[in-house]
Amino acid sequence: MSAHHLKMMRLALTEARKGVGKTAPNPAVGCVIVKDGTIVGKGWHRKAGTPHAEVHALREAGALAQGADAYVTLEPCSHFGKTPPCAKALIEARVARVFVAMVDPNPLVSGRGIGMLREAGIEVEVGLLGDESRELNRPFIKWIQSRRPFVVLKSALTLDGMSATASGDSKWVTGDAARREVHRLRGRLDAIMVGVGTVIKDDPLLTCRVPGGKDPLRVVVDSTLRIPRHAALFSLKSQAQTVIATCCTDPARIDALTAHGVEVLVCKEREGRVDLDDLLVKLGERGVQSVLLEGGSHLAGAFLREGLIDHCMLFLAPKLVGGAGMGLFAGEGVRLMADAIRLEDVKVKRIGVDLLVEGTPRG
Amino acid sequence: MSAHHLKMMRLALTEARKGVGKTAPNPAVGCVIVKDGTIVGKGWHRKAGTPHAEVHALREAGALAQGADAYVTLEPCSHFGKTPPCAKALIEARVARVFVAMVDPNPLVSGRGIGMLREAGIEVEVGLLGDESRELNRPFIKWIQSRRPFVVLKSALTLDGMSATASGDSKWVTGDAARREVHRLRGRLDAIMVGVGTVIKDDPLLTCRVPGGKDPLRVVVDSTLRIPRHAALFSLKSQAQTVIATCCTDPARIDALTAHGVEVLVCKEREGRVDLDDLLVKLGERGVQSVLLEGGSHLAGAFLREGLIDHCMLFLAPKLVGGAGMGLFAGEGVRLMADAIRLEDVKVKRIGVDLLVEGTPRG
Repeated sequence: MSAHHLKMMRLALTEARKGVGKTAPNPAVGCVIVKDGTIVGKGWHRKAGTPHAEVHALREAGALAQGADAYVTLEPCSHFGKTPPCAKALIEARVARVFVAMVDPNPLVSGRGIGMLREAGIEVEVGLLGDESRELNRPFIKWIQSRRPFVVLKSALTLDGMSATASGDSKWVTGDAARREVHRLRGRLDAIMVGVGTVIKDDPLLTCRVPGGKDPLRVVVDSTLRIPRHAALFSLKSQAQTVIATCCTDPARIDALTAHGVEVLVCKEREGRVDLDDLLVKLGERGVQSVLLEGGSHLAGAFLREGLIDHCMLFLAPKLVGGAGMGLFAGEGVRLMADAIRLEDVKVKRIGVDLLVEGTPRG
Repeated sequence: MSAHHLKMMRLALTEARKGVGKTAPNPAVGCVIVKDGTIVGKGWHRKAGTPHAEVHALREAGALAQGADAYVTLEPCSHFGKTPPCAKALIEARVARVFVAMVDPNPLVSGRGIGMLREAGIEVEVGLLGDESRELNRPFIKWIQSRRPFVVLKSALTLDGMSATASGDSKWVTGDAARREVHRLRGRLDAIMVGVGTVIKDDPLLTCRVPGGKDPLRVVVDSTLRIPRHAALFSLKSQAQTVIATCCTDPARIDALTAHGVEVLVCKEREGRVDLDDLLVKLGERGVQSVLLEGGSHLAGAFLREGLIDHCMLFLAPKLVGGAGMGLFAGEGVRLMADAIRLEDVKVKRIGVDLLVEGTPRG
């Protein structure tokens, strides 16, 4: 594929990125329209229910779209949803070629948009920077294919693996830059999840505290509904909801909580605790495509051991607790080092004084 | 300082590096001699008792040294030791200028070589790439100034901070490339140290298993002389000695060990254990300038808490034990996260699939 096409698709990806975290339940998509080597239209999908990326780009291009090349980071849709199908819009605009980074991951419609374009005589090239586009929409892809949200484990720990000292003190493990990055992350994911132990210990707000940031849905996993009534979460002003996920069905306890303005989400029970897979299914049903799992160590350990973590983001502070402390995962670890859970596609970068190590856990 | 001078001093540092790990109790030094822009001599110090870097370079330069510039990574010596003073050799060769990266860190002779050169009318510039030269000889500098060896803590651990699983299994935390790097490291440092617990658990050889590698002195810290008589260390063929450091003075136990061909080094006692600072003094007395501390967790924790670690090399494997396991440091950690021991001058690189994070602990 020529350098020109790569460059244009990269621009389309840059457009798409502007929508990450804002488009659920839709994916983030970008589109660039190029006529005789000149960009005549660009667009990105801003919010579900509003025009798709292609429509923005076509509007900007106007009559120049005729005979042009369109670069779209995701297969144009073929169905009438809240907006008319984009494949139809591209056909009507009489573009000459469409470059598609990846097919629609929704198994129900995958390939249909491309089919519509080809039937209308438009040349379609599929796969240009497909990996980059998939990377951008990993949560959407997982959700559309499994109906469960994409789970990102985030933790801050010292180089000797401690997220708190033995006395429970964790203020602060990482520096300002890493903590700001976590707030940005909260703004990009649909929900944030913690165990009730973390609420009891840290009394967190679980909000996105960066300018212009969007608060995620707050989910507290609390199998026995022991969350303290004075928790800061209950008096929080936020555009987002707080959900207490439980397997406790005691109406008195549930009513006491709903009276505080939070929602109680009753999940299946598994060995006396919330069935985490069922919780993910229930969150997926309400359109939650991504969850930022912030701990504590019991919840993180359970998620990891059940294979429910899709991505790890570990902020490593260059410091040492130097002895006993609280680790990232509570509970039983693997018995043999050879059975340790490997991270794949590992990326490392510096965030201020700290390191961010990211990767995907594999069985 | 001009690009030319920097380039020449960098070459001198490259020469010096060839001697790292081979020159104790001398520092690693390199020298380059440049006449009219052309390199006419290069040299590095190979081994204590043999000619210094300047002598090698001057021999290569011959008569061309007259009026030349000499670049030396460390101040030329001024005293008659096993070899005549290098400052004198430079004066006799009638070089015009001498660039010195750093002054001799030995407080007893520091500045004398430079003084000799200046008295002889030679122009001397001090400090060019001084930091790089100091970095190269950190062990020598510490030893010559404090008479204690430079202690490097090396450990392999998972991203969740475990150097072994709860059952004690640690084979292997890191991949081949990182393990090879550790063997190279053993060849560059004067001694390798472990606690007796590690001998009991892992029965290690503590040798340098890379082609052409030099075995370090092996030091086992064993306060009560409980090292098993069947330990692999006792039947090892190696050019290097095994030393058991203890505070046990029972002659029967000591004799039983020395009969096995190892040396028993009786140190001061501190709270029932080997006084680690005294051990370092004793090792320094016998010319050990650097120690690679490989664990276990009790010894590493004691060294860290007593402020005796000069440098940390942590090989982080991109994997997770996912629950309880054995951490890097046993014993009590700091009570508050704000009191965690920070690493400074942190460097990160990939070694195969693993990460190497290095840094200097600060109180």
